Amino acid sequence: MHSHVPRVPYRISLFVFLALFSCSAYAQQRGETVDLGMVTQIRQEGFRNSQVMQTASAIVDGIGERLSGSPNVKKANEWTRDQFTKWGLQNAHLEGYKFGRGWQNEFTSVRMVSPDFMELIAYPKAWTPGTSGAIKAPAVRVVAKSPADFEKYRGKLSGKIVLYGDMPEVKPQAEAAMSRYDEKKLADIGHYEIPSEKPRFSPEEFKNRLALRKAADEFFVKENVVAVIDASRGDGGTVFVQSAGSYKEGEPEVAPSLSMAVEHFGRIARLLERGGNVELEVNVQNKFYTDDPTAYDTVAEIPGSDKKDELVMVGAHLDSWHAGTGATDNAAGCAVTMEAVRILQALGVKPRRTIRIALWTGEEEGLLGSRAYVEQHFGSRPESTDPKEKDLPSFLRKPGTPLTLKPEQKQVSAYFNIDNGSGKVRGIYLQENAAVAPIFTEWLKPFHDLGADTITYRNTGGTDHLSFDAVGIPGFQFIQDPIEYETRTHHSNMDVYERLQRDDLMQASVVLASFIYNAAMRDDMMPRKPLPKDAVLPPASAAPAKTPAKKK
Amino acid sequence: MHSHVPRVPYRISLFVFLALFSCSAYAQQRGETVDLGMVTQIRQEGFRNSQVMQTASAIVDGIGERLSGSPNVKKANEWTRDQFTKWGLQNAHLEGYKFGRGWQNEFTSVRMVSPDFMELIAYPKAWTPGTSGAIKAPAVRVVAKSPADFEKYRGKLSGKIVLYGDMPEVKPQAEAAMSRYDEKKLADIGHYEIPSEKPRFSPEEFKNRLALRKAADEFFVKENVVAVIDASRGDGGTVFVQSAGSYKEGEPEVAPSLSMAVEHFGRIARLLERGGNVELEVNVQNKFYTDDPTAYDTVAEIPGSDKKDELVMVGAHLDSWHAGTGATDNAAGCAVTMEAVRILQALGVKPRRTIRIALWTGEEEGLLGSRAYVEQHFGSRPESTDPKEKDLPSFLRKPGTPLTLKPEQKQVSAYFNIDNGSGKVRGIYLQENAAVAPIFTEWLKPFHDLGADTITYRNTGGTDHLSFDAVGIPGFQFIQDPIEYETRTHHSNMDVYERLQRDDLMQASVVLASFIYNAAMRDDMMPRKPLPKDAVLPPASAAPAKTPAKKK
Repeated sequence: MHSHVPRVPYRISLFVFLALFSCSAYAQQRGETVDLGMVTQIRQEGFRNSQVMQTASAIVDGIGERLSGSPNVKKANEWTRDQFTKWGLQNAHLEGYKFGRGWQNEFTSVRMVSPDFMELIAYPKAWTPGTSGAIKAPAVRVVAKSPADFEKYRGKLSGKIVLYGDMPEVKPQAEAAMSRYDEKKLADIGHYEIPSEKPRFSPEEFKNRLALRKAADEFFVKENVVAVIDASRGDGGTVFVQSAGSYKEGEPEVAPSLSMAVEHFGRIARLLERGGNVELEVNVQNKFYTDDPTAYDTVAEIPGSDKKDELVMVGAHLDSWHAGTGATDNAAGCAVTMEAVRILQALGVKPRRTIRIALWTGEEEGLLGSRAYVEQHFGSRPESTDPKEKDLPSFLRKPGTPLTLKPEQKQVSAYFNIDNGSGKVRGIYLQENAAVAPIFTEWLKPFHDLGADTITYRNTGGTDHLSFDAVGIPGFQFIQDPIEYETRTHHSNMDVYERLQRDDLMQASVVLASFIYNAAMRDDMMPRKPLPKDAVLPPASAAPAKTPAKKK
Repeated sequence: MHSHVPRVPYRISLFVFLALFSCSAYAQQRGETVDLGMVTQIRQEGFRNSQVMQTASAIVDGIGERLSGSPNVKKANEWTRDQFTKWGLQNAHLEGYKFGRGWQNEFTSVRMVSPDFMELIAYPKAWTPGTSGAIKAPAVRVVAKSPADFEKYRGKLSGKIVLYGDMPEVKPQAEAAMSRYDEKKLADIGHYEIPSEKPRFSPEEFKNRLALRKAADEFFVKENVVAVIDASRGDGGTVFVQSAGSYKEGEPEVAPSLSMAVEHFGRIARLLERGGNVELEVNVQNKFYTDDPTAYDTVAEIPGSDKKDELVMVGAHLDSWHAGTGATDNAAGCAVTMEAVRILQALGVKPRRTIRIALWTGEEEGLLGSRAYVEQHFGSRPESTDPKEKDLPSFLRKPGTPLTLKPEQKQVSAYFNIDNGSGKVRGIYLQENAAVAPIFTEWLKPFHDLGADTITYRNTGGTDHLSFDAVGIPGFQFIQDPIEYETRTHHSNMDVYERLQRDDLMQASVVLASFIYNAAMRDDMMPRKPLPKDAVLPPASAAPAKTPAKKK
């Protein structure tokens, strides 16, 4: 799940709580039926012959971190494609899109050399340059609330290692890092929230933050600092790290930048505050890959039969941040979606509609892989040209107009996404599509004994189903138990295999396999929300032939 | 607190729970009174003008890790001595004893270079050698349950990096790392446990473990491995690290040895298990200090008046393990004991008895500093000569006989120790000395509002009050809230300033200052337990002159 897109606002709109059993009569009126014999087979295969942990380990242990554009994520694209082929899926291939530079950290060493030797836990931020070998330099603290605050440091930072920003307060861990949704929390998620008048994430505040960041970047480069280090969220050796530089070539350079364990940052900061001298040694070797700006999505299919031109899609993003191995974000989702299609393939199901699985990249940088795919196949909008919005990131801009659809758009029944960590499925977000409520209500019934029984009209954001939702295709993300997602794993150095929960991933695979099967076998396509008024439909005569795509 | 000495067995003996209020009449019969005006002054000074956090920061941030025998612990000895002098204490000095080699880690870098680049969190074990620069080598897994198990690896490990031992199971953090004692737990601690027939820590099991370790050490040196790495207890970047080599010169050499974050060990172990090749790069620079085997305790006094030849002692150990900065183990105890005497000094108290504070070293290696001090000043036993016990560590041997006392022994009223982490004082262990119960009951009363109200007949072990208890001097350790001691800090890389709890340390300083004051002002010495039958007393005529000691 990427965190540029604020998740909360998407959950703030109409208000309905759908008590499951109270609506079952309503569901039965619609004649929604579930093949319980197939449920039995799916459960047997998913709980007795599961490969979900092997798949996850192959991705996180065998390949490792998968920063978009990196050699590692390309390896993961190829490995997953080949794995699909091995399992007997059809048409396993990569589809490329223009991304930008690749980047990889090859060596990092940060330590205190005076007044004491101490190894410091720190990770370079993605797309930042390394240092020219091991550099010993004095540490200096810089705190700025606005661009003007840098003035007092001007001319004083050359050849220094800057500890930049606030020192977060560190408290004892008074609550367990691990949690599951209880009945009360699930009921809360089931309650819709009417959209607020004010945006929760103020564009003004965002612009100020962006201006401060830009000023800091320019200032530190101009001052010729050795490196800029900030204190990570997290503690106890868990460090949350994202990017500082840009994956786009031609963007302004930044100084070598790292996030450090809060306790290590704290020791240096306290020594400096007392007027002490601290010397650090930093050695960071990063490599950029600029030969080819293409990144890839992995795509494969179980072909349909009587409705083979219609699609049920399922997906998860394969890319990750770089300090851990992207286990819960989102090898978990990849392993679950892969396991779901493996289960169906192993059972030899002959779906009516074609089942297409896609493993996206570029998700952490703004759902880039799924957006590119959707644009290529289903429809797109131009960028907003509102001059007031030109500095804002895409998720804070109003959508451009018009929405132009391609013929294939109307052939996709639904898209199912998994990207909320390693927790089992507790239900599903309807994404405000009321007509799917009775359908999903029936589909979840055989999984109540596995804890999956909640339906909410709420929207949820932050991941790739939004790319489908944006062009009028029903796109869904499941409700998943949090486990340790926000507390320990989401974008941290400790998002590794050990954080994966076997039983949860098996459960999610089974529920998902059943959802895919139901969607593929159903007489009708899934009901859709109304298209936006500006939508430009393809001519009725246009053949929904496959759009050509850069394939590998 | 050092963990060679098992703590639990000391708590297993007679059974009494002392309900505080029910015994207050009994206490009043004895006429124990507390100067509540002085309590007010101590609370004011301790809560309004506290320096406990500054003291702690000077030790852990300013100096850093303080492995016994290292240059850092010597700096800490000198800094604390000078601080005592600054505060106006008398006779601040260092007392030396024969320890062994010093050791310090100056550089550590461990990373995976194939199949992926990954920085690995790992710390060298104390008193182990470093590597000859950066060495890239294949990783290989070795698991052995008995010395014979090494045979199958013979001839295969030269030039390899060995991942040795089991892979601990890693679970989500289902419980908070932080805890305080609640009423139920305090009531439990208040209940005495009758000593078990069987020792909880079997000498046989210990011998087997020792034999396996010795075999492993010899084998890995003979095989000429590059390094031996095991998986740490702890997770999420928290690594628990102690020693592998010996502080004693002339002991057999060991291979370069490290403890690694369990998740990083896990990734390599899983890759190897699948038959993959893993190449690591290890670069460890350690330095031994062999010029002078002396280690030091810091000692200082507030001189007494009419009973100045009698002593009340207070202490904590200044040494630590090396991967963190020894904040809760035990800069916390040092800062609290120092703050307690600072409070009394700031209030200008003129104690009747002399108050002597001692900051020990060598505690982690077996209470060495306090034992040496007690031996020098108060009394000693010979080593046990039982041939069955010769391979056992001292804490598993029966005490040698006889106990020979020096004249000064009978002048020490009590010794108070702080070494159970950063938690506030909840009460005190009577160490099976029933006669002090009514006294401590009264002394705790003004601190019930601070959560200090539990008295237990139980023994507690693991730290320096045992050295006093062993020669018949009443030695006590307080009951302290655990906070995150076992879960995060005790001997870990994350035992750093951020783990210290300001309010708790202030509370402990205030309670301790009051205990010291009460003991120093009381008409009588504290009641003692009976001496062992083998005790050899000094001639009645012997002057209790100060024993000469190596001073600095």
